[in-house]
Amino acid sequence: ILSKRIVVLPGDGIGPEVCSEAVRVLRAISSRFGHEFEFDYQLMGACAIDATGTPLPDATLDACRHADAVLLGAIGDPKYDNDPTAKVRPEQGLLGLRKALGLYANIRPITAYDQLLEHSPLKAERIQGTDILIFRELTGGIYFGEKGRSEDRTWAYDNCTYSRDEILRIAHRAFKAAETRRHKLTLVDKANVLETSRLWRETVQDIAPEYPSVALDYLFVDNAAMQIILNPRQFDVILTENMFGDIISDEASVIAGSLGLLPSASVGDGAALFEPIHGSYPQAKGKGIANPIATILSAAMLLDHFHLQEEADCVRDAVQHALDQGVVTPELNPTTLYTTEQVGNFIAYSV
Amino acid sequence: ILSKRIVVLPGDGIGPEVCSEAVRVLRAISSRFGHEFEFDYQLMGACAIDATGTPLPDATLDACRHADAVLLGAIGDPKYDNDPTAKVRPEQGLLGLRKALGLYANIRPITAYDQLLEHSPLKAERIQGTDILIFRELTGGIYFGEKGRSEDRTWAYDNCTYSRDEILRIAHRAFKAAETRRHKLTLVDKANVLETSRLWRETVQDIAPEYPSVALDYLFVDNAAMQIILNPRQFDVILTENMFGDIISDEASVIAGSLGLLPSASVGDGAALFEPIHGSYPQAKGKGIANPIATILSAAMLLDHFHLQEEADCVRDAVQHALDQGVVTPELNPTTLYTTEQVGNFIAYSV
Ligand SMILES: CC(C)[C@H](C(=O)O)[C@@H](O)C(=O)O
Ligand SMILES: CC(C)[C@H](C(=O)O)[C@@H](O)C(=O)O
Repeated sequence: ILSKRIVVLPGDGIGPEVCSEAVRVLRAISSRFGHEFEFDYQLMGACAIDATGTPLPDATLDACRHADAVLLGAIGDPKYDNDPTAKVRPEQGLLGLRKALGLYANIRPITAYDQLLEHSPLKAERIQGTDILIFRELTGGIYFGEKGRSEDRTWAYDNCTYSRDEILRIAHRAFKAAETRRHKLTLVDKANVLETSRLWRETVQDIAPEYPSVALDYLFVDNAAMQIILNPRQFDVILTENMFGDIISDEASVIAGSLGLLPSASVGDGAALFEPIHGSYPQAKGKGIANPIATILSAAMLLDHFHLQEEADCVRDAVQHALDQGVVTPELNPTTLYTTEQVGNFIAYSV
Repeated sequence: ILSKRIVVLPGDGIGPEVCSEAVRVLRAISSRFGHEFEFDYQLMGACAIDATGTPLPDATLDACRHADAVLLGAIGDPKYDNDPTAKVRPEQGLLGLRKALGLYANIRPITAYDQLLEHSPLKAERIQGTDILIFRELTGGIYFGEKGRSEDRTWAYDNCTYSRDEILRIAHRAFKAAETRRHKLTLVDKANVLETSRLWRETVQDIAPEYPSVALDYLFVDNAAMQIILNPRQFDVILTENMFGDIISDEASVIAGSLGLLPSASVGDGAALFEPIHGSYPQAKGKGIANPIATILSAAMLLDHFHLQEEADCVRDAVQHALDQGVVTPELNPTTLYTTEQVGNFIAYSV
């Protein structure tokens, strides 16, 4: 019997709905395989601001620090957007949590599902068979550098910094992943302009000889943004810094045909956090139309993290089964009208 | 009789070949309409490093300062890439020129040509009719902020800064362009994370009331990178900062089906520079397969800049005619085998 404490941060918008289904699937797994998963619900994001005045309450951070894993829905509320002067923002909760837990590597698999090729804006023959794993650095770069304004507020700055150690720890992870996959690693940077990018290139070049089976190449981020659409199958593992990873991984999501399918894991030295890559989609809140699959696949990555390989594969097979049977939410098939809960139930029942 | 001095910077790789064709077309225009265009060829990029040791020789900068416009081919050579420690790089020439001439607005039209829909990796029905104008800030942001290393070289930084004035001057241009188009302006930023982005949002919001006919909206850059592929027709004018503009505009180029079709204009208070958005494509150098259309359309933007509307339209019509007749380079039609020069000749003959 394996016993684990999982903190659940449902967050805002559709977050609570998709989290419910992922928890349902995890419960199905624990009862089938005889594990004990304890779920501890905590506040983060706009809901936490509304309840406590801060997007990441101490109680939440504490619970996460002592958890075996964290499952996150989504955060963000339009009432905090479009107000550039707002002092407290839901995003600060997520950024703060990443930093506090040391979640320096965000891992995003991008897969073109055969059943869903027609949903992609890209031509099927260009994307069929795509299988990319993106490693995005998550606790450094321009996100966390010093930022501010001049006194008269007419001038602003954001500093981007990277140290060799910050690059090394995620680069080793990316190389190791490439060793277990198709042995190709592409570093995405802007080394023709940025000093930080040159440090990334140098550092990655330095350790490449430790991974002789992995072919390393480099792409400037502008070119990468093109290549991901023109010929996604050329990529195996992509490694990149925080800001470029944010852009490139969301862009790459179009390959899958729906944001509602894409999971992610954020890992570091201690705890790990699992979340769909989609946002809180406030317009869909409470309508039962949100696709729970991205969160359910994030739960599968959580099981991977616990080294529960059979259990994780079992979840992924159940998701495939739902796709095969067309048990999907309306954005993937407007004629069937399965709800978030029905899709979650079907998958939980199939594990 | 209009008399103008145009500095031509052929640059590296395929740059000289595509510039020749654009100059050929400009000569055809000048003889048909009775203008006098004087062409002054200068070195910039890797060819300038090889010849003079510096990517932007004083003579080149001087000539550009006194020209009515600058036409650029492309710069870059693989022998200067992948060496993060190289002290002199071709790109410094281009960046230096942008800064020295004060070319703060880079304008990139993205058009889906009906004749070429099949060449795009995107499904035709998603992109047909796309007509986007991207305004990328070109002399500020992280490109030009202070950058450097710690003494032991294990730590690097790039500073991103923007002032209200830097944002205002390009924002006014973007609003004015939207007024002559479909009256929509989208600011792409990362205001949920970056202080500079919040300054962009504030500043653009402040002047929006001066353009009551323009609908202003905002997209986070990660979302924009998705939306440009999912539904490009939603965009009219896009305004963004330097780094995001670099990524987003290259990404958007996939809509056109070939990088070889996309022109750009970089403008400021004085001189203006016109260049294709593609790079120097060294593998294709001297093979006669480079598509000259992007540079020819950049020459059309140069004519716009001289307020030669009829002449500019005449070039664009001739390009359309070449596309209609299938007189295109191999990347657009592998069976016809027209060379760079044949395509240029056909277009020059048609103006
Ligand atoms: C919400 C936002 C701060 C966040 C980011 O930019 O990292 C999101 O876009 C993501 O990718 O997880
Ligand atoms: C060559 C490089 C410095 C340049 C840039 O990043 O601005 C290029 O990519 C461009 O977009 O013109």
